Amino acid sequence: MSRIAVRTRVTRITVDGPPRHVEDLLAAEEPLEIRVGGRSLVVTMRTPGHDVELAQGFLVSEGVVSRREHVAAARYCAGATVDGENTYNVLDVTLGHGVSAPDAGLERAFVSTSACGLCGKSSIDAVRTHSCWTVDGDDLVVPPALLATFPDRLREQQDVFAKTGGLHAAALFDGRTGELLVLREDVGRHNAVDKVVGWALAAGRLPLRGTVLMVSGRASFELTQKAWMAGIPFLAAVSAPSSLAVDLARSAGMTLVGFLRGPSMVAYAGAERVVAPSSVAPPSSADALPAPVRPQPVEAAAR
Amino acid sequence: MSRIAVRTRVTRITVDGPPRHVEDLLAAEEPLEIRVGGRSLVVTMRTPGHDVELAQGFLVSEGVVSRREHVAAARYCAGATVDGENTYNVLDVTLGHGVSAPDAGLERAFVSTSACGLCGKSSIDAVRTHSCWTVDGDDLVVPPALLATFPDRLREQQDVFAKTGGLHAAALFDGRTGELLVLREDVGRHNAVDKVVGWALAAGRLPLRGTVLMVSGRASFELTQKAWMAGIPFLAAVSAPSSLAVDLARSAGMTLVGFLRGPSMVAYAGAERVVAPSSVAPPSSADALPAPVRPQPVEAAAR
Repeated sequence: MSRIAVRTRVTRITVDGPPRHVEDLLAAEEPLEIRVGGRSLVVTMRTPGHDVELAQGFLVSEGVVSRREHVAAARYCAGATVDGENTYNVLDVTLGHGVSAPDAGLERAFVSTSACGLCGKSSIDAVRTHSCWTVDGDDLVVPPALLATFPDRLREQQDVFAKTGGLHAAALFDGRTGELLVLREDVGRHNAVDKVVGWALAAGRLPLRGTVLMVSGRASFELTQKAWMAGIPFLAAVSAPSSLAVDLARSAGMTLVGFLRGPSMVAYAGAERVVAPSSVAPPSSADALPAPVRPQPVEAAAR
Repeated sequence: MSRIAVRTRVTRITVDGPPRHVEDLLAAEEPLEIRVGGRSLVVTMRTPGHDVELAQGFLVSEGVVSRREHVAAARYCAGATVDGENTYNVLDVTLGHGVSAPDAGLERAFVSTSACGLCGKSSIDAVRTHSCWTVDGDDLVVPPALLATFPDRLREQQDVFAKTGGLHAAALFDGRTGELLVLREDVGRHNAVDKVVGWALAAGRLPLRGTVLMVSGRASFELTQKAWMAGIPFLAAVSAPSSLAVDLARSAGMTLVGFLRGPSMVAYAGAERVVAPSSVAPPSSADALPAPVRPQPVEAAAR
């Protein structure tokens, strides 16, 4: 049994019939302390595995690193032991030459810039000053029929979720070919995204132009921010986005799709990146040109 | 339109048929900065509303306050303005006489005590030192048939979720009568729990003996910890718990039930608190005594 899932004995209960004692699998959750140059930066509750990616992705999200060479090394702290055994829960990152170490309490740094008038706009502005990529010029276009295949492919690859029912997932797709580039699972959805971004950093793929990040749950401001910091132009979620996620996506020129379930979806920002192939036929084939899109009467978006 | 839900224009897309532009409602997300005595303590992304409860519940979770009189006042910061309008996103809490202000960076304080050997056990030990309640002696017993009614009643009360599909919920039930005491919704599930606990603090109800906290999603370590800090003996979740949530519940003597959906559920800790009325009949009615519970063969718990 890996540390990703933990076996335990539970009691299955129904309103009629006797309780049954059965074996079950739980999604593992353990603290990870991320240190930079030996100094503690943050502790996150995560599912063990891909910890180096998690740390690297976190540092990308926070604007500390943006290229592979910005991270010189990442090692589990040898002194992090319980009863003489390494816990593998403390990871120390050594930054590359010339890369500035973050301030302590970094995860709140973006907020401290917003002074007293804390609002959605100041949060968005603070992210903007930290991002070294722009995504509004990304000319990615994804056919709805291709997007509609992503949720099933996400679910098929969720090994640990299938066993435990207890994990969020984030997957990165090539937006043009539909290839699944990487999928990560975690008890924390922000961690799953950090692991994907950390994988991309190590692979020298930042900024992630032309990609779609698909998440298994809702799209919050934080997840949208992480996508932007990695240069991802397109975020898709199985469930609803929040108001501030939509504001940020619109402000950044990102596409944000929610309620992506089977053949239907809702575009909250950047709908121009969701276009069927027939709609982008070359000008020469005049008979293939689509009928103009006529807005339908206003109604509530179906769930 | 309240600040809890935000109206916006979206594009509804299907794989066949033209896109339609429709009006939709989004769950509101805004930053809230919690200050104590004028000093910034934490910023959380939350759904506006019940902010004082959120701040109070957060302070209970962190072990700063445990009784109503520990909070002297809570006010929106008058200087927190954008274009001359109060953002209502900065809340300053004044502690009662003799209550110690928390250290800055408090939300990581429990971790800093675990030194280098960061593991699940040290996380649990650190929580234990902060809690001023014990729950293992709570003699609450809840019939499965009563528990089975909680998910539907949670969902029925989720006003904003019904409109937006974008909110987590936490509800507190009287474990004996089944009365729904309070329900709160938020984009962050930890915030929904903090709001419930903050409500209880203000109502002078801590510790919350004899209650069941029901959450709409998964049960993480953090949510279990928050329940314990409020003296709640019973946590029920619609979805899966994590390994560390189960470890903490067992260590604390709490009951933790997951996959509470309709008539079935799984008890991960403290199953002795989930008993049908016939099983607790008085000794005098010998013929009503239940048959002994026979463990069934080991199998995977059904989802």
